[in-house]
Amino acid sequence: MAAVVAAASACATSLSLSSAGCQGPAVTATQRAAATKRLEAFNSEIWRKCAFSSNSTVTTRTKISGVGGIARATAVKDSPTRPSSLVGESGGSEKKRVMILGGDGYCGWATALHLSKKGHEVAIVDSLVRRLFDEQLGTQTLTPIASLQKRVKKWKDVSGNSLDVYIGDICEFGFLEHAVKSFEPDTVVHFGEQRSAPYSMMDRDRAVFTQHNNVIGTLNVLFAIKEFAPDCHLVKLGTMGEYGTPNIDIEEGFITITHNGRTDTLPYPKQASSFYHLSKVHDSHNLAFACKAWGLRATDLNQGVVYGVHTAETAMDEMLINRLDYDGVFGTALNRFCVQAAVGHPLTVYGKGGQTRGYLDIRDTVRCLELAILNPAKTGEFRVFNQFTEQFSVNDLAKLVTKAGEKLGIEVKTSHVENPRVEAEEHYYNAKHSKLVELGLEPHLLGDALLDSLLNVAVKYKDRVDFEQILPAVSWKKTGTKPKTVKPSGL
Amino acid sequence: MAAVVAAASACATSLSLSSAGCQGPAVTATQRAAATKRLEAFNSEIWRKCAFSSNSTVTTRTKISGVGGIARATAVKDSPTRPSSLVGESGGSEKKRVMILGGDGYCGWATALHLSKKGHEVAIVDSLVRRLFDEQLGTQTLTPIASLQKRVKKWKDVSGNSLDVYIGDICEFGFLEHAVKSFEPDTVVHFGEQRSAPYSMMDRDRAVFTQHNNVIGTLNVLFAIKEFAPDCHLVKLGTMGEYGTPNIDIEEGFITITHNGRTDTLPYPKQASSFYHLSKVHDSHNLAFACKAWGLRATDLNQGVVYGVHTAETAMDEMLINRLDYDGVFGTALNRFCVQAAVGHPLTVYGKGGQTRGYLDIRDTVRCLELAILNPAKTGEFRVFNQFTEQFSVNDLAKLVTKAGEKLGIEVKTSHVENPRVEAEEHYYNAKHSKLVELGLEPHLLGDALLDSLLNVAVKYKDRVDFEQILPAVSWKKTGTKPKTVKPSGL
Repeated sequence: MAAVVAAASACATSLSLSSAGCQGPAVTATQRAAATKRLEAFNSEIWRKCAFSSNSTVTTRTKISGVGGIARATAVKDSPTRPSSLVGESGGSEKKRVMILGGDGYCGWATALHLSKKGHEVAIVDSLVRRLFDEQLGTQTLTPIASLQKRVKKWKDVSGNSLDVYIGDICEFGFLEHAVKSFEPDTVVHFGEQRSAPYSMMDRDRAVFTQHNNVIGTLNVLFAIKEFAPDCHLVKLGTMGEYGTPNIDIEEGFITITHNGRTDTLPYPKQASSFYHLSKVHDSHNLAFACKAWGLRATDLNQGVVYGVHTAETAMDEMLINRLDYDGVFGTALNRFCVQAAVGHPLTVYGKGGQTRGYLDIRDTVRCLELAILNPAKTGEFRVFNQFTEQFSVNDLAKLVTKAGEKLGIEVKTSHVENPRVEAEEHYYNAKHSKLVELGLEPHLLGDALLDSLLNVAVKYKDRVDFEQILPAVSWKKTGTKPKTVKPSGL
Repeated sequence: MAAVVAAASACATSLSLSSAGCQGPAVTATQRAAATKRLEAFNSEIWRKCAFSSNSTVTTRTKISGVGGIARATAVKDSPTRPSSLVGESGGSEKKRVMILGGDGYCGWATALHLSKKGHEVAIVDSLVRRLFDEQLGTQTLTPIASLQKRVKKWKDVSGNSLDVYIGDICEFGFLEHAVKSFEPDTVVHFGEQRSAPYSMMDRDRAVFTQHNNVIGTLNVLFAIKEFAPDCHLVKLGTMGEYGTPNIDIEEGFITITHNGRTDTLPYPKQASSFYHLSKVHDSHNLAFACKAWGLRATDLNQGVVYGVHTAETAMDEMLINRLDYDGVFGTALNRFCVQAAVGHPLTVYGKGGQTRGYLDIRDTVRCLELAILNPAKTGEFRVFNQFTEQFSVNDLAKLVTKAGEKLGIEVKTSHVENPRVEAEEHYYNAKHSKLVELGLEPHLLGDALLDSLLNVAVKYKDRVDFEQILPAVSWKKTGTKPKTVKPSGL
């Protein structure tokens, strides 16, 4: 295997208060004592949270059991006398045990805090390889993000809520097995994939890494759920890019086709346009099969391009701030444009700029996740939601940012640069996105307030911008077989 | 990475007379002398073959160049004075340089000999991992196959034609790079994948191995062609199983859909039903993208279930005999039924037996490959042929074998066993398969002669049959996360 960047120990570092497991045979008396202390703290914690829970119906403590020589708290599943924070209730207000793969990333971190704030028990699983990518490429988020350890501690200070943390690579099944067995999720949210199209097109190593990491990681998730949590609802992040830009309306996952006098409803045809987007197509097919063959339940969220940086929770403290990528590899449209506007760099429109996609505010991302979790797929069901709120062309976005810049006294120019991608620059695009609205999503449509806020964030941190990282760095057509390395900035 | 069974040296063993390259710096004088001798032998060989070629227009020798300190013969590309065995000609009789990935397997071996017999220059690339699977599972082919080395030598003795051989794993890019650079194919035929659905459903390790091996191997092939042989035509083996069993007609790769008043021709929706079949779906999507983004040319052959053992070439000598699998993991319908009939084992029909699929004779497989090679896809084109000649249900096949058995005085019984797979047992099935016929395929339809021949082969080798390997060994629903091991037979 050529390029597994994120090696991880099968016995992962765990900051979890509730999961003292995974110790090897060499457990010392000191470690035992420490574990027992953590367990006691955990139990007080459960009681404290329950006491403050608005819908508390606590009548018993969580079950205590010994695992691997270490006493350990296990949530009692399906117990009518379970603490309310762990008990499912009807009416959409039930509390879940949600494991978030990739919980240190842009969407994952915001989602973890949002769900934690709403009273769900949340565990973050992350290899932190996204931070390694930044180191290797010489890039960094515009916003100064804290280490995961500090973020989690600060969240506890600010909200009173704990987050379980498992540091490791889901491509290592032993690690994932440990995490799932010890946390016992009823929902797994899977953001834990390499998510940049340009990264996947840099060179062969990274193309292979992307497909291996994403496809094998997801296979492991499917097997872990089948074996250790078969009733668990998998909420998997796909992408609107799986559909490409067909010349007919895009439906939500499936399309009813009448052909030669017969009719069937089939998976919507996929035309992805990078090795990254393709990896998500592969995942979708694997998921559909696992639901059919094994009776798993899964929701595939075909998400559009996310913009914005703050959610109610990440804005609660500077140390909780979310990442904001503006570079040519990880930066996405709109976020990238706002940063370019803030530093006086022309907006870089690739090609003609007629490329149209679905977009959504990160505040809607976290709400969509919550809606999918509270309204799970049925046993054996594989369902697909298109997760975006509005369509824009790249030219539309450039105009909106230019106008918003004017209001703040920033002169914004636009430059059409050669399109590094292989994609249609003028095309039909009409994608359905009603299922999440039917579940209760009230979209934050893109407006002046968001653009002002985003531009202000960009202005606030503009001294952190590296101009050499702004232009597109990866050409779809020039992808090579030699590993691409990056010169240190200024050399 | 959990389960890469087929490790291979980047500097692979090469039996090729024409490729003495890939030596490291430590080349001794003895090695140099040996290489020079092999080169001289190669050049005489070229001349000898050219002299006997019926369409020879030889006017010059192949170019001699030094690579890595070792003199080496290189076919001169696009030279009007190239030896005829290396020169492309019009009218479908042109000679090609065909690299066959997986050339030691059931379809690969038969194809390699057929193309070699027709005068094409053929190189076999194989990790031989299929032979390792037999060792690990305690299975073996009904027919006693020789080692690849002996097969190739015998073919030279029988036909006078050489086959280049590269032993290694295409998941190792360094190895594949060497093979492609030294052989300089104008066509790559890609059979080099794990091809058993039950194998992919045995356990997590094998599911992961199958998708890793097939998807990453194919990615490497795409990158190798892009970088080192961009005009090369890739002929990739897919499977009819990619389509599943939709309730509408199956088209060849693409379907024209009119939806909400608009029309587009899109990839045919895929509904694969094992991790193996899914790996082929993933490959198809990756291929389509590579053709679009990089201008590669590829033909995806969605092959049906192949039956039969002999082709004109493999029947030329006992040592050239092809493999015939009858076991529950690698055996396919019809071949498996004939072996069961020969040893007096009831035919094992899974479930109701209404499962209908496309089938073809292995003599048509080799002809289809030749037709696809002689009529290559255009630059940037990704085309799909459905490669089968007739449709049968499993019950149809059982009846045919029962009748053929009667004629040979064999009483054949049928037993409906619990279906180990998750699949519809009664369904609509109508798949198009006209494109290869349009190119000139004249099918060997399934008839008495083939069944007699196949039954006679089965009777001839029936002492090699292991009864414990006949029943289905893998359940789709019970796939586990623990590696499945096989008890030695009789223990």
